[in-house]
Amino acid sequence: MRVSRRGDVAPFIVMDVMEAARQAEVAGADIVHMEVGQPSTPAPAPALAALARAMESGPLGYTVSLGMPELRRGIAGLYQRWYGLDIDPERVVVTAGSSAAFQLAFLSLFDAGEKVAIGDPGYPSYRNILKALSLVPQAIETTAEHRFQPVPETLPEDAAGLLVASPANPTGTMLDKSALTALIRAAEAKGIAFISDEIYHGIQYGPRAVSALEVSDEVYVINSFSKYFSMTGWRIGWMVVPEAHIRRVERLAANLFICAPHASQVAALAALGAHEELARNVETYAANRALLLEGLGKAGFTDLAPPDGAFYLYADTAHLASNSHDLSAEILREAHVAVTPGLDFDPARGARTLRFSYAGSTERMQEGLLRLQRWYQARQR
Amino acid sequence: MRVSRRGDVAPFIVMDVMEAARQAEVAGADIVHMEVGQPSTPAPAPALAALARAMESGPLGYTVSLGMPELRRGIAGLYQRWYGLDIDPERVVVTAGSSAAFQLAFLSLFDAGEKVAIGDPGYPSYRNILKALSLVPQAIETTAEHRFQPVPETLPEDAAGLLVASPANPTGTMLDKSALTALIRAAEAKGIAFISDEIYHGIQYGPRAVSALEVSDEVYVINSFSKYFSMTGWRIGWMVVPEAHIRRVERLAANLFICAPHASQVAALAALGAHEELARNVETYAANRALLLEGLGKAGFTDLAPPDGAFYLYADTAHLASNSHDLSAEILREAHVAVTPGLDFDPARGARTLRFSYAGSTERMQEGLLRLQRWYQARQR
Repeated sequence: MRVSRRGDVAPFIVMDVMEAARQAEVAGADIVHMEVGQPSTPAPAPALAALARAMESGPLGYTVSLGMPELRRGIAGLYQRWYGLDIDPERVVVTAGSSAAFQLAFLSLFDAGEKVAIGDPGYPSYRNILKALSLVPQAIETTAEHRFQPVPETLPEDAAGLLVASPANPTGTMLDKSALTALIRAAEAKGIAFISDEIYHGIQYGPRAVSALEVSDEVYVINSFSKYFSMTGWRIGWMVVPEAHIRRVERLAANLFICAPHASQVAALAALGAHEELARNVETYAANRALLLEGLGKAGFTDLAPPDGAFYLYADTAHLASNSHDLSAEILREAHVAVTPGLDFDPARGARTLRFSYAGSTERMQEGLLRLQRWYQARQR
Repeated sequence: MRVSRRGDVAPFIVMDVMEAARQAEVAGADIVHMEVGQPSTPAPAPALAALARAMESGPLGYTVSLGMPELRRGIAGLYQRWYGLDIDPERVVVTAGSSAAFQLAFLSLFDAGEKVAIGDPGYPSYRNILKALSLVPQAIETTAEHRFQPVPETLPEDAAGLLVASPANPTGTMLDKSALTALIRAAEAKGIAFISDEIYHGIQYGPRAVSALEVSDEVYVINSFSKYFSMTGWRIGWMVVPEAHIRRVERLAANLFICAPHASQVAALAALGAHEELARNVETYAANRALLLEGLGKAGFTDLAPPDGAFYLYADTAHLASNSHDLSAEILREAHVAVTPGLDFDPARGARTLRFSYAGSTERMQEGLLRLQRWYQARQR
């Protein structure tokens, strides 16, 4: 049976690590998971309670395509609370996670064959979704000097779009207001559509993250309930679009998705109010971050950029191994800690980097750190 | 800000009807909804109970991309139960509704610019999803003689794919085994990939629906928990793919969706066992169908094809009005019954057809029928 070329997307390198970890666990080993990019906490308690009530009171059929009006208003309220911004709820599109939002953004903005610039290192699915939708990812090699973020001088002239993440995955670095403004203005000047991935907003360790909506209304902003709101498996997120794009995105969403999961929308609405529980989660990430920044040096990971947000540390490992894929396999085998090779985030340079996720519990992060330190000491002998 | 051409998909005509119905309801009117294609029943009781338990016991994070292994096994079991088929659970891909399955199928099989044949009348999102993904929908005009289904002689020579639905929306007609076999063999002979939309399987009023998997393993079969299992808003469905396609679809799914909603997967697994409740739903549809087939003639809708399955009746209305869009507006205004103009299903010929959905309760269908009959009598004077 025939297949397409665009459907030939690359597998994630981390899948090998996850499969090896699973096999080790089946064989009885205890593995510390520092490879997965998701909180170990459940959805906030009010979210679960709201859904339990909703299941007793209605059929939870399709919602309108753009999402439950009260959820769209609640999300607009978040922009007031977090950034002091007055966003029209009509501009908020509720989506099946940020995954659906990326698809909607790319299809609303770009035709087959067009180029979309993304920073390397970056979230690997950007590249693969673009390719699957017949678009051409244009990698911008970022540098530690610019905190692994694109700068106006590195914008390709022929790009139709630019996708930026702040805080970024895998580095956790942020664009401050002036850097973000410079990028948005440069994109505007070149007629490049600007898409801002703000999925890690709310998880920050110094100044708060800046939204692209603080700079311009003529951008697509993508966010999700997966990270700060601890609802990965619920597949619920949102996108804020320019007013003139609401109807086209609505039509795309109605055809491609019908609507985001109703149950998840009910839960997400209640999650918006779970301030204390969510603040405690961020305190845990902050403690984990401090622990790893303090202790990873003793495990040989001396070259780390302190992250501004998210729950990742990106380490240069060139002095430890020539290939981070092999290194992650060694660490899993010897230390029983699963970590992600950088190749997933940066095909060109990721052979000398690893990503540590500290989204787990502090207890597990302590255990993982201890194992890594022991592994490194044994390796030094 | 720039936009794409492929993102310019047409709005649904029925949206006008739904908005007018909503406004009438806000103004205090009671509207009978015969326009919506979803059950009025909730998810089966065991599904809701299973999710309530799961919410108390785990974080419901991401599942693996192809879906929970026990759900994939459960779905494979359904093929044994319904068709006597032995399907390897590895071939079952759990998706965020049939919507996600269509996207995965189209991206796995077809490159930008390729043509995919679909029967007119048909589900309007086929056309729009194809267009959004840079594919070219090729409409096959079906006829009442062939029960509104494509036949081998009407297959375009240059199509890369053929998408068929049985039972079909909006007509409810089915392909029997010999008709389905003839189509699959004709597609195979021309190198055309065959996609079978089986979303209404289980809702049938005579012989059971035939799965394309009874004819060939080299097809994509799409199904969902939305209709028979009464779980529209949960956005949970599945696709069975040829063995050689599992890994490519897995990679596409991981990148484009990460996974289907975890909560919906838990609920769907339990729904598979809700035999009696689901059989009662089908009994309701059967009663509604009989009621409408008996009574719609007295409301002027004399030209109906008795449906084999699903919960729709497709009526020729050429003798009542030259434009079904105006006719549906008239019926909403005069009879307070919402129905769908055929233009959504058949851009070329739908101005002279209407679709009635009888997915609601028998009581509401009786009320709707009475109103339609009164409207028609008044119109005759």
